[in-house]
Amino acid sequence: MTYINKQWVLKQRPTTTVDSGDLSLQSTPVPPLQDGEVLVRNVYLSLDPTNRVWMSDREQYLPPVELGSVMRGSTLGVVEESRSERFAPGDVVFPGDSGWQLYSVSHESRTGRVRQADGVPLSAYMSVLGSTGLTAYFGLLDICDPKPGETLVVSAAAGAVGSVVGQIAKIKGARVIGIAGGPAKCKWLVDDLGFDAAIDYRDDDVGEALDRLCPDGIDMNFENVGGPIMDAVFSRLRLNGRMALCGLISGYNEEGPMPGPTDFGRILMKRLTIRGFIVIDYFGRAREAMADLSQWVAQGKIRWKDHIVEGLENAPSALDRLFTGDHDGKLMVALSDVPGKG
Amino acid sequence: MTYINKQWVLKQRPTTTVDSGDLSLQSTPVPPLQDGEVLVRNVYLSLDPTNRVWMSDREQYLPPVELGSVMRGSTLGVVEESRSERFAPGDVVFPGDSGWQLYSVSHESRTGRVRQADGVPLSAYMSVLGSTGLTAYFGLLDICDPKPGETLVVSAAAGAVGSVVGQIAKIKGARVIGIAGGPAKCKWLVDDLGFDAAIDYRDDDVGEALDRLCPDGIDMNFENVGGPIMDAVFSRLRLNGRMALCGLISGYNEEGPMPGPTDFGRILMKRLTIRGFIVIDYFGRAREAMADLSQWVAQGKIRWKDHIVEGLENAPSALDRLFTGDHDGKLMVALSDVPGKG
Repeated sequence: MTYINKQWVLKQRPTTTVDSGDLSLQSTPVPPLQDGEVLVRNVYLSLDPTNRVWMSDREQYLPPVELGSVMRGSTLGVVEESRSERFAPGDVVFPGDSGWQLYSVSHESRTGRVRQADGVPLSAYMSVLGSTGLTAYFGLLDICDPKPGETLVVSAAAGAVGSVVGQIAKIKGARVIGIAGGPAKCKWLVDDLGFDAAIDYRDDDVGEALDRLCPDGIDMNFENVGGPIMDAVFSRLRLNGRMALCGLISGYNEEGPMPGPTDFGRILMKRLTIRGFIVIDYFGRAREAMADLSQWVAQGKIRWKDHIVEGLENAPSALDRLFTGDHDGKLMVALSDVPGKG
Repeated sequence: MTYINKQWVLKQRPTTTVDSGDLSLQSTPVPPLQDGEVLVRNVYLSLDPTNRVWMSDREQYLPPVELGSVMRGSTLGVVEESRSERFAPGDVVFPGDSGWQLYSVSHESRTGRVRQADGVPLSAYMSVLGSTGLTAYFGLLDICDPKPGETLVVSAAAGAVGSVVGQIAKIKGARVIGIAGGPAKCKWLVDDLGFDAAIDYRDDDVGEALDRLCPDGIDMNFENVGGPIMDAVFSRLRLNGRMALCGLISGYNEEGPMPGPTDFGRILMKRLTIRGFIVIDYFGRAREAMADLSQWVAQGKIRWKDHIVEGLENAPSALDRLFTGDHDGKLMVALSDVPGKG
């Protein structure tokens, strides 16, 4: 059987938000499998702010996606055909060679098995039990290192990463303030996730709200946004404060360097630690995080939301939701039917 | 016997370089000792860039020196009179209540004994075996954490801290590039201290020189200066690079916040760690550093220079040498005669 793949190919580099002409949807037959390879029908495609960075020819942590290549992206799928002894049709996997496409051909050595727990939807393995969960776990515990009673401020707090960061920090006994856009997200953080407070950056003066909520300063900043929001938090970091720099989404749609806090001298005077990280650095320790995260999910200590957009054709327009905030939970695209368990 | 103290008192806050009207030299009798106190005749007064910060009413790590108070500063001196059972006349000490003054009255609980080694001049306990040595030791080893073969760039490399940083890094097997002002200092770094290379920021294009000397990027930056020199180093920090932020002297003579590197996003993309520190945080671990530093000094593995200006009256004008670079080694003021040993 010949499979016809559909793939989003990067045609030109966007300079602001992604435009409809920047990518092109192309059809191409899937090549025949070689020994050790599996053919994966992708079910979910993860959309993450970092995807936008990959489209730009700027300094970054992976090479930019080359013009004319399939857009890079993480997927989860089901094995349709296998020339590997390690995988059989029906297995649910993370293919190594993923991307914005319906099918992936993936060598067994680069294919990871998904072991779905009872009662957990498959989409969770793209969010709380996937890369964004790992991002939250290691960035918070490895860099912020929360102590009971310390105060954490997390930006993009209702996002896939931020919402999990805040809940893990609560489990560790910290006081948690989230910054999010709009009253519904703020209410969710406090009422459903147990954040101590939430600041609506669209409606509140973030600096004033932080002064009110954190009169003794801030111990930890899990930073996803950058720009003036980061500056408001940074300028209130107290002695021995830590910032886990996870993202700077406010700068991703612009060309040029991403600016830092106004008063860099505070790092010296307050003996702050600022550390950037990328979740791929922690893939080797994923098991460690998954053990805790799976338990917390099973115990109902961590809640999450997945925002699923239907259809590969909608991937480029859906990506922009990450920048406007017009999404509710981990953003992903459903590419094909979810396989039945069993 | 009544001792007449001379003290520099802060009259007004300088807004640029320290002006002759900013401090006033006053005479006042030393009050009688209380039980547990010692009277210390100060021999050396340390001049450090941070002194300038203390004069300003800006965010900092200690309260600014109050107007009308004796200027804060570290001294080393000899006990003249004692009402403590722990100290006798002739003992060489770091008094707790030091400052820019001829005499200090210091409670025994805040007085530290100096144990001078044979062949080591007393001034060394104000430099390589004093606070600047500790600063170099902990900032480098605790924050930069050099591994053999890694590349370190240190700014203000011929200064009291920077010169020791570079030599410790060499002991630890790193490759060391110093940035200093003028050919004599650069020659000293390479020929006498064993730095691998030195960049004369007054004559060289720092960025070009770094590109030439560090084609694979920089692993560690021990930063004393800030401004464009820091930016040149920062923008070449490579994956998992570390910056120990020890000082930002380029901003101390100006009002307002001290700016950071142009491309803050590099912290994220290259997973950098930026950590500020102040040597006082490490005083509790001083013994650990002193054991190593004393041994390295005795073995001739660490060399240093002390730049001694005579006379308390010259302290304010001497301080400016730190900002112009017109000094050769650890800057201090000799306030009175060095006691004979034994």
